[in-house]
Amino acid sequence: MSPGSAGPDGPAESPVLVTARRARAAATELAPLPRTVRDGALLAIADALVARAGEIVEANVRDVERARAAGTSAAVVDRLTLTPERIAAIASDVRDIVALPDPVGEVVRGSTLPGGLELRQVRVPLGVVGIIYEARPNVTVDAAVLCLKSGNAVLLRGSSSAYASNTALVAVVRDAVAAAGLPADAVQLVPGESRESVRELMGARGLVDVLIPRGGASLIQTVVSESTVPVIETGVGNVHVYVDELADLDMAVEILVNSKAQRPSVCNAAETVLVHQGIAEAFLPRALAALTEAGVTVHGDESWQKAGAAAGVEVLPVTGEDWATEYLSHDIAAGVVPDLDAAVAHIRRWSSGHTEAIVTRDALAARRFVSLVDSAAVMVNASTRFTDGGQFGFGAEIGISTQKLHARGPMGLPELTSTKYVVTGDGHTRG
Amino acid sequence: MSPGSAGPDGPAESPVLVTARRARAAATELAPLPRTVRDGALLAIADALVARAGEIVEANVRDVERARAAGTSAAVVDRLTLTPERIAAIASDVRDIVALPDPVGEVVRGSTLPGGLELRQVRVPLGVVGIIYEARPNVTVDAAVLCLKSGNAVLLRGSSSAYASNTALVAVVRDAVAAAGLPADAVQLVPGESRESVRELMGARGLVDVLIPRGGASLIQTVVSESTVPVIETGVGNVHVYVDELADLDMAVEILVNSKAQRPSVCNAAETVLVHQGIAEAFLPRALAALTEAGVTVHGDESWQKAGAAAGVEVLPVTGEDWATEYLSHDIAAGVVPDLDAAVAHIRRWSSGHTEAIVTRDALAARRFVSLVDSAAVMVNASTRFTDGGQFGFGAEIGISTQKLHARGPMGLPELTSTKYVVTGDGHTRG
Repeated sequence: MSPGSAGPDGPAESPVLVTARRARAAATELAPLPRTVRDGALLAIADALVARAGEIVEANVRDVERARAAGTSAAVVDRLTLTPERIAAIASDVRDIVALPDPVGEVVRGSTLPGGLELRQVRVPLGVVGIIYEARPNVTVDAAVLCLKSGNAVLLRGSSSAYASNTALVAVVRDAVAAAGLPADAVQLVPGESRESVRELMGARGLVDVLIPRGGASLIQTVVSESTVPVIETGVGNVHVYVDELADLDMAVEILVNSKAQRPSVCNAAETVLVHQGIAEAFLPRALAALTEAGVTVHGDESWQKAGAAAGVEVLPVTGEDWATEYLSHDIAAGVVPDLDAAVAHIRRWSSGHTEAIVTRDALAARRFVSLVDSAAVMVNASTRFTDGGQFGFGAEIGISTQKLHARGPMGLPELTSTKYVVTGDGHTRG
Repeated sequence: MSPGSAGPDGPAESPVLVTARRARAAATELAPLPRTVRDGALLAIADALVARAGEIVEANVRDVERARAAGTSAAVVDRLTLTPERIAAIASDVRDIVALPDPVGEVVRGSTLPGGLELRQVRVPLGVVGIIYEARPNVTVDAAVLCLKSGNAVLLRGSSSAYASNTALVAVVRDAVAAAGLPADAVQLVPGESRESVRELMGARGLVDVLIPRGGASLIQTVVSESTVPVIETGVGNVHVYVDELADLDMAVEILVNSKAQRPSVCNAAETVLVHQGIAEAFLPRALAALTEAGVTVHGDESWQKAGAAAGVEVLPVTGEDWATEYLSHDIAAGVVPDLDAAVAHIRRWSSGHTEAIVTRDALAARRFVSLVDSAAVMVNASTRFTDGGQFGFGAEIGISTQKLHARGPMGLPELTSTKYVVTGDGHTRG
């Protein structure tokens, strides 16, 4: 079926729906294939990426030039840039994913029922997974490979700023997939660079099984509120570090600085620090010194401002806006709270449900914090930066879910599957 | 906060949003409570239902009289009716649920990471669960108790035809819950009998964690397409029985009749039978005789019509409409297919993804059918009527999910939970 031609159920379909229908057909072919076949295709992708690095870089140069001409920041241009070395690294990541355990076919639950029926709950692919993501072209390969490994067809909707790179990458991937005997339509770029193509994808319920938006808060908000296709919300991290009354001061400073400044641009970086008033006097000066040294600007409440004045460090006044903000920069909102429950209440009000940390020596305080905080990950005496599929030992991650349904926290391969009950009898009927 | 008063974030809130906000607060209180406290409340509910059966029946009589006056069918009136015996049975079901394993706190996954961080993935309640359901008032207690058992607050939106009964039941449940030391707002009836209250519930994203519609296809369709709160689609069952070329004829007839006629009004009853052409000549006459004896009207293709004419049984002509219909009555659509793959293609096109069955002696055919059919449950030589939380040994069920995200098939207590990662270190930071 060519783009724009009539689908089986009606008049002319949009190119996006045609693509989705092809993905559905490919998913049907893909689901029953054994691991060896899928893994063979993934290895072929890794080889092809290295072999055809030249044409990928050539396409990427066009995106990079366009971005530079548009005055894009150097950091973003860097994230967009592909070199032969970076492509080799992507290929190496693909090989690592091949080695991961196959989630498909895992028997999650099994029993023989009292009447003799044999019940098995078996992992199966979700079917068609749609990924909507921003600038980085390495996500194109990563998402495609994770979906194929878990038996899914994937629809990739990257940003228009990486369109040439993504087109080249997907062409390489599709060729390799087809050569390995899998349907090429298991990996497709969603046609069109406009917002309209995202809207059509969000309306393709029945053809697309799940949409995973990866990117900024506004993209995710749009998809969550407008999609009729089920969505997994990912990646918005308004992350808190709470320093308890009985915290080890050195440890608290180290965890705070690491959580905030080790890589401020990512979702598991801290955005707010809350300090128990009983330790504030001792902690604030040391925290201010360490944060300042790490290049962090503090947006603080009165206590933090006083401590700043005393230390000769500028502390900007914090606002409600600050508590709500995922800075993704060298900024942090900072407050002092009367007790642990006040910290929890603050977190419940402002957190995006990604990750929060407590630093404390008090086992009961740690237990209470873990129990009351309603987020995907809760760290006790550890940096918030550990919320990550790689760090958690999952080998790979398609995103970090901040919702409670289906998957919560870093999503690895099992989170890209559903299950099916298989019930076997020898003529069983219900009385 | 009284209905209609100002919420923390804006002007006057609707009664539905006020209710949802109270549920959120109750969920926060509920989540950290240990099993013994929750179970105590459930036992108190069971006792209170029996003790206060009189006032429940009194309220129910008003609904029943209203239904009779409106000319409601005897079957529906019967489903609406509560008697002291039926209330005792509901109370007994509550006690059975108390005895089930507690899903909350279960460690789903755990490991010590290479750097020494201790990782645990722990089951936690979803939070606030909204259930939208139709006539039967026993669902009110059932849903409330399953949600409480799994640590969730529940918002109940029953049908207006059971409003008096539901109001009485929820009053009894809330009193018992409060007396046991839990927040009464953990169980609330959504105020208002209009469609508008459903609409507001569907928009309460952030206050309500999941909506589970239980009822007819049109209710479920509305919720799925309009809700910004995540939805679990349940219960629409366009269920197929495929009789393979190598089926045991007696077994096939028994499974077909049981699947269709043992209780036609429920979602796991069969709605279509597909027969391999190689066995059609032998099977159709016997199937027609058995279906007719069970009071079933067949809507058949040409082969079935011919077989009907030969047997002197009226077979109505089948239409596309029939293939799509969940009759929930003594009707069945019937076709002959050239082979197993054609049966699978038919099922993929028309099924709602609930349950399909194959009857066959051929192990390879069974394996292929199980592998290719994309439904929540696949039966091999067993009646479709077995797709049920009770039959599967889950002890209870909040619904049967026909979607792939979060839960698929009968949903027991674990499906009413999410998880949280708890990561414990002694000062771990990322290098």
